[in-house]
Amino acid sequence: MIEQTPTINIKRLMKTINESATIGKLSRGGICRLALTDDDKKMRDLFIQWLSDTGLEVRVDDFGNIYGRKEGKNPQAPPILIGSHLDTQPEGGRYDGILGVLVGLEVLTTLNNMGIQTERPIEVINFTNEEGSRFEPPILGAGGLAGHFDQEFVYSRKDREGKTFLNELKRIGYHGSKRNRIQNCHCYLELHIEQGPVLEHKNLDIGVVTGIQGMDWLEVNLIGQSDHAGPTPMNMRKDALYAASKIIQVIRETIVNLDEEATATVGRLAVKPNSINCVPGEVIFSVDIRHSDDVIKEKLTQSLIEKISVSAAAEQVAVKIDKIWESSATQFSGNLVNIITENVKKLGYSSQKMISGAGHDAKYMNLITPTAMIFVPSVAGKSHCQEEFTEAEAIEKGANLLLKTVYQLANSNASFK
Amino acid sequence: MIEQTPTINIKRLMKTINESATIGKLSRGGICRLALTDDDKKMRDLFIQWLSDTGLEVRVDDFGNIYGRKEGKNPQAPPILIGSHLDTQPEGGRYDGILGVLVGLEVLTTLNNMGIQTERPIEVINFTNEEGSRFEPPILGAGGLAGHFDQEFVYSRKDREGKTFLNELKRIGYHGSKRNRIQNCHCYLELHIEQGPVLEHKNLDIGVVTGIQGMDWLEVNLIGQSDHAGPTPMNMRKDALYAASKIIQVIRETIVNLDEEATATVGRLAVKPNSINCVPGEVIFSVDIRHSDDVIKEKLTQSLIEKISVSAAAEQVAVKIDKIWESSATQFSGNLVNIITENVKKLGYSSQKMISGAGHDAKYMNLITPTAMIFVPSVAGKSHCQEEFTEAEAIEKGANLLLKTVYQLANSNASFK
Repeated sequence: MIEQTPTINIKRLMKTINESATIGKLSRGGICRLALTDDDKKMRDLFIQWLSDTGLEVRVDDFGNIYGRKEGKNPQAPPILIGSHLDTQPEGGRYDGILGVLVGLEVLTTLNNMGIQTERPIEVINFTNEEGSRFEPPILGAGGLAGHFDQEFVYSRKDREGKTFLNELKRIGYHGSKRNRIQNCHCYLELHIEQGPVLEHKNLDIGVVTGIQGMDWLEVNLIGQSDHAGPTPMNMRKDALYAASKIIQVIRETIVNLDEEATATVGRLAVKPNSINCVPGEVIFSVDIRHSDDVIKEKLTQSLIEKISVSAAAEQVAVKIDKIWESSATQFSGNLVNIITENVKKLGYSSQKMISGAGHDAKYMNLITPTAMIFVPSVAGKSHCQEEFTEAEAIEKGANLLLKTVYQLANSNASFK
Repeated sequence: MIEQTPTINIKRLMKTINESATIGKLSRGGICRLALTDDDKKMRDLFIQWLSDTGLEVRVDDFGNIYGRKEGKNPQAPPILIGSHLDTQPEGGRYDGILGVLVGLEVLTTLNNMGIQTERPIEVINFTNEEGSRFEPPILGAGGLAGHFDQEFVYSRKDREGKTFLNELKRIGYHGSKRNRIQNCHCYLELHIEQGPVLEHKNLDIGVVTGIQGMDWLEVNLIGQSDHAGPTPMNMRKDALYAASKIIQVIRETIVNLDEEATATVGRLAVKPNSINCVPGEVIFSVDIRHSDDVIKEKLTQSLIEKISVSAAAEQVAVKIDKIWESSATQFSGNLVNIITENVKKLGYSSQKMISGAGHDAKYMNLITPTAMIFVPSVAGKSHCQEEFTEAEAIEKGANLLLKTVYQLANSNASFK
């Protein structure tokens, strides 16, 4: 075993990030590279070129997930898997997902260039259709691999023009073999931008991600009475928007009194008849509720449903509340989180443990193998927009942390959960 | 002078109301009879037929306003004018405006059938385009007659298809002469449905209308920061919708602490990006502020502008507030209000003085002659909808009050303001 830890080459890494950003390039620095489009194919072709240039063994599975394998001294040992996705939102940034794949490539390139062979094989993966902007739901490639979605379901997903996942996969030449799916994986690691403002705000290098928040979506329908704004005295109104505004206050009060981690967001709201001189008769709005503990999340949702009903009744407004979506919380491997935390200290970086508010490929990989994630700071917390940005210095630290962790795990026989 | 006061024939009156409701008839009992359309022409032709049948002298002025005149013993005396409008909203009711015109006709029919000639002439008028649903702004016929709008302005108003008021007036054959405008009017009286819930709620027969509220319209633009709902902690958000909901509360608190009459309505509101999992970055909403005292209204508007700014700043949200419309309050003739109030008592009806929250032809007529209005109850306060309804018994009381008042004024030489 070699004593000194290798380090990545940030210039080489930034070169691949910048080259990726030319495919599906938008006017203000962002990317539009929807899954299984011609631009996605162009990016995939380039990625495979890079994998081959680095001397990795390339294969594609039946969901179009692309693997690059660096053989271990012990080819039978379960491999370490690193990755994320190269597809983007319609007006996405150049880091979301892409960073995790290209840092994985950089880790393997570094090891190869230094002539290092680890005990275990190491593979880098690009998952298909993480964003879900073209084919819903999101995270189809990782969800298919992990058995969360069956093959038939994934293949039959349609885009807005009615084109199926399977036909588009075949059209761009990435319909690989089921035999090529990774099996008996030792662990999965994913580096990603935070997509929130916490690390930057606290001036921290690294977020050690312990899990992904569970999520409930409510749709609330308030029905009051639409009246003329002039002839209807204030005390004789059943104003659905006034009731909604009280409820939005109650939701915020409930959340901030619970704990630091819980979030609740009223993001969508529509008013009827939506006319300047009419008292609003009806309001429909959404509530997005998140917590990393499903029990707390469920209690919170129930509590909000009750409080919404009470507030609506106090304003003499009828209310209908539907739970329109639910997603369980994900708890990553405690052992992996500890190992990453140790390595952060050894490298002299600053960090905190954190919960991801957004979904990732790691969410489903966690179903079949010990999984953890590393977050690097997002400038101003911005993501899913062209302004998405992370400093090269921040990327370098994250990549070296990943390299150190992968290098350690790939030479260890310790098993963990 | 005759001692006994004549009374109207409610069956005859309801017959004209029901016949009017067949022209532009909608499926649920309402009417679509936009100004200067073929249906408006049909109604005008029928109205002129009724005027002639009653023996009234018909004339049409240069705004298409239709007059029916009952001569007085003294033809030189300034006439009493009674009226309202026969046009409707796109999905309007069968009483709004129509009632005032047809009650006017019934008053003159009653007097004629009883062989009564008053000292003063009495005229009934149908004003053109009160609703403003086809040609904006509303109250064009009365506003033109009163000199609030000049003839060129009224004539050049266009509907959504680009057709002008003047061409449509000519097309339906109602482009009369400027010489036919009423001149030297003694007073103007308008009976109308309340369009609000107060009379029904208090179980009163009559509203004696003392004026029309002044109105300010504000447009408020809040700019926060749109972020992902998941990764953005509650205390790091600049949520424009949360700020709006606080402001809606503040507006209501300010209004209910002021006086019973003031109203403020947030009727229109739009959220951007309006997505379930995005913290709202921008909200635009309207505020409709009304009071019968322009000084109070102006102070209230200023106070709300300040409070909105303070609330927005507290939520770290930028704010832009524009006053997009302003309309002065109208104060009707105190003498006429007193005369009507006396007559309510003599007839044994219940009543209260009230301010109209909506605009009427009386608003502009008040500029050139002593004016007052009589309100009859609206069931459930509904108006500008097909469900608009007023009981025949309630109409009968209002019509007899108008008749008694007209009869008294038309035989009196007392001058008033």
